[in-house]
Amino acid sequence: MTKLYIKYFFVISFLCVANKVSAQTYFQDSIIISKIYNEALTKGKSYGMLQYLCNNIGHRLSGSNTAQIAVNWTQTSMSKMGFDQVYLQEVMVPRWIRGEKETAFIEEKGIVNQVSICALGGSVGTGGGGIKAEMIEVKSFEELKARNVDSVRGRIVFFNSAMDASELNPFDAYSKAVYQRVNGAIEAAKLGAIGVIVRSMNVSIDDYPHTGSVRYSPTVNRIPAAAISTLDAEFLAKRLKNNPCLKFQFRLSCDTLPDVKSYNVVAEIKGYEVPEEIILVGGHLDSWDLGTGAHDDGAGCVQSMEALRLFKALGIRPKRTVRAVLFMNEENGLRGGLEYARQAKLLNEKHIAAIESDAGGFTPRGFGIDADAATITKIEAWKELLAPYGLSEIGKGHGGADISPLKEQNTALLGLSPDPQRYFDFHHSALDRFEGVNKRELELGAASMAAMLYLLSTYGL
Amino acid sequence: MTKLYIKYFFVISFLCVANKVSAQTYFQDSIIISKIYNEALTKGKSYGMLQYLCNNIGHRLSGSNTAQIAVNWTQTSMSKMGFDQVYLQEVMVPRWIRGEKETAFIEEKGIVNQVSICALGGSVGTGGGGIKAEMIEVKSFEELKARNVDSVRGRIVFFNSAMDASELNPFDAYSKAVYQRVNGAIEAAKLGAIGVIVRSMNVSIDDYPHTGSVRYSPTVNRIPAAAISTLDAEFLAKRLKNNPCLKFQFRLSCDTLPDVKSYNVVAEIKGYEVPEEIILVGGHLDSWDLGTGAHDDGAGCVQSMEALRLFKALGIRPKRTVRAVLFMNEENGLRGGLEYARQAKLLNEKHIAAIESDAGGFTPRGFGIDADAATITKIEAWKELLAPYGLSEIGKGHGGADISPLKEQNTALLGLSPDPQRYFDFHHSALDRFEGVNKRELELGAASMAAMLYLLSTYGL
Repeated sequence: MTKLYIKYFFVISFLCVANKVSAQTYFQDSIIISKIYNEALTKGKSYGMLQYLCNNIGHRLSGSNTAQIAVNWTQTSMSKMGFDQVYLQEVMVPRWIRGEKETAFIEEKGIVNQVSICALGGSVGTGGGGIKAEMIEVKSFEELKARNVDSVRGRIVFFNSAMDASELNPFDAYSKAVYQRVNGAIEAAKLGAIGVIVRSMNVSIDDYPHTGSVRYSPTVNRIPAAAISTLDAEFLAKRLKNNPCLKFQFRLSCDTLPDVKSYNVVAEIKGYEVPEEIILVGGHLDSWDLGTGAHDDGAGCVQSMEALRLFKALGIRPKRTVRAVLFMNEENGLRGGLEYARQAKLLNEKHIAAIESDAGGFTPRGFGIDADAATITKIEAWKELLAPYGLSEIGKGHGGADISPLKEQNTALLGLSPDPQRYFDFHHSALDRFEGVNKRELELGAASMAAMLYLLSTYGL
Repeated sequence: MTKLYIKYFFVISFLCVANKVSAQTYFQDSIIISKIYNEALTKGKSYGMLQYLCNNIGHRLSGSNTAQIAVNWTQTSMSKMGFDQVYLQEVMVPRWIRGEKETAFIEEKGIVNQVSICALGGSVGTGGGGIKAEMIEVKSFEELKARNVDSVRGRIVFFNSAMDASELNPFDAYSKAVYQRVNGAIEAAKLGAIGVIVRSMNVSIDDYPHTGSVRYSPTVNRIPAAAISTLDAEFLAKRLKNNPCLKFQFRLSCDTLPDVKSYNVVAEIKGYEVPEEIILVGGHLDSWDLGTGAHDDGAGCVQSMEALRLFKALGIRPKRTVRAVLFMNEENGLRGGLEYARQAKLLNEKHIAAIESDAGGFTPRGFGIDADAATITKIEAWKELLAPYGLSEIGKGHGGADISPLKEQNTALLGLSPDPQRYFDFHHSALDRFEGVNKRELELGAASMAAMLYLLSTYGL
């Protein structure tokens, strides 16, 4: 048992001398939060669940067999936890398949060097013979557009702007660099390029290509798009400097099949006082297919399941309804998040707040809040209760992709903010496996979700 | 370049409307600190230095050949960095050697199970034939002392109190459990035990034994002492429950040779305004021998070297003298720290403050300060400048073992506080290798050391 709540009692008693009721309430809250962390750290189930999800089931690419197995397993697991209801919510999802492992080669003066690439999610394939062409390297769309069209037409465009290591938060660096991956194929195809190779979204220099979704436009030719590892991006840039006429050859066997049926997985404990007000915790169950989606976002799923389990294990009866949602298809469509919000509107459900964990299973540092100023102020006031657990960064910020469609219903959106420094080493790559997740860090995140869920379900907004 | 200092300017401007000079000074400080982080994150040398130290040199057990190579290499490296002086400070250190890899077996009813152990640092050996005896398991010294002396005499004592996972900070759990490792051999020998096996100081359940120093008393028989992995501690406890009469056999080839000459490595940049006032940054160069001492404490050493290098690279001329000290023999003697403080006193050197990094190369969260209340308040006031870099936990706390002997000279002692959740997975085990350190986390720690060094050298205390 941590002794924090005892220490905290004196702080609160001091702060609240003029308000005995408030001091008493806060003391009770601090005890419950202490119990949540204690249970998560000593008898937590999140780590074991993540191990099963990643190692026994595997990746959960939308529409895949393993994604369906994960739907069944999480439904069954939560059904055994004794919640008030557990159900599936049907949603049609894209069915993109990677096919055979991708290959790529740099050819110059009779020398051939193989480099590490992977197809971007949603890319068209190259056909069995692959694509072989000269290449131009650019570091921005402006640079691309300034090129002579003749220098782009028939060539492969290599987008090689690195994530800015000087950004303290790598998520900020990601936001500024990811346009290349998302829209690079459209911009390059507009100028007649026949393929794009994008530097992996990763600050580290290593040999793992990182996938992620690519967009196409209905009015622009769809050209194959792949990510190259940061190590090989550096190598390729050097070779191009020496020999601008080198040939780049790559082959992608990926394809998009018709949409298939899949599901969001939903579990809830009914509120005993204001059951019609819902507080949601969630993550996304789908993942990319190179690793097994441990940080992205197996972590968020098992933390959401664990948040509700902690309520049951500790006998916490919520005043408002608490609901765990494992969304399908965040990575390449957001269909689960969109369908969930659509159903909520149809059913006239009232979502007061939604908390998403989709930034990795690392030591939690706070919550970002996407809501009006008064709501942010109200949630910030709980910092006193949460800062003793390392949650000192609570304020305006990002909620999460899956919960973002709820914004139009005026739901306060919260995103768990774990330490961000290591996330992009794993993100969308073969390294995103169970072994990359630390047990205590994951458990602390689950407890933090549960603590915020407890406060929101107790006090509303 | 981060944009934090621009944002920060407005905050400070607002806070300091009544004090234009202070606002201006703080703005300049914020720019310098921003440059420090920028340089560390984009052109930092700490990660490359750690790679060399761990992978090319290896472990640095006090008195070993590799420890001497590390002394030479760090001296040479810092000499090339253009500091005002780099020198060695002689110190005699213990020379304990592990010898052949340890072995241990549980024997019962003709079945033999091998378990993972390692000798504790400083332990006597068992002799070539090893020790084989019945065993008693205890979870505290009170429990041991309450035993009938006859049940202890001639047996091996198994100290199996686990680190408390419910402690939010695993260092607190370590502090409460480590007595078994440090003093277990004395307490067990007092009652006639012939050996001790101690559960590894690790919250995780894994198969790596964790070493660390054991104490002996001049008046009590010295008995062999080893750590067992947490996984095998659990297994052994189960077997003992089933069969209290099982035999435990172990063999340690370790030995203590005569003390040998070694060195602290010292580098400094002279202050241009108050050169007689010294601000120290340091870590310990020695390590245990099972891994290569990456987190403990190669990280602290390269961060200290990097802190001074950042001053040179950015053209920061310190008002007070800044000194990097790589201490020898923290792990099994603290001889380097003691000798450094003795020399400082002899030479009448005035150490205003000393900052140690010896809690791993993880994302920095703040500094613990061991000083009088007024000094702590003064340092806490810099939180505004440092919190934008994640350093929100600045306050009363622990400095560091190597700098602790400076306390009698009234030096303010500061300890870099990184995220503590993963430290004991690595600590004193074969897992403490370069691969366990993240580049950005290490670099952020180095920048944080340099930022605090800059403020202390600019303003004094």
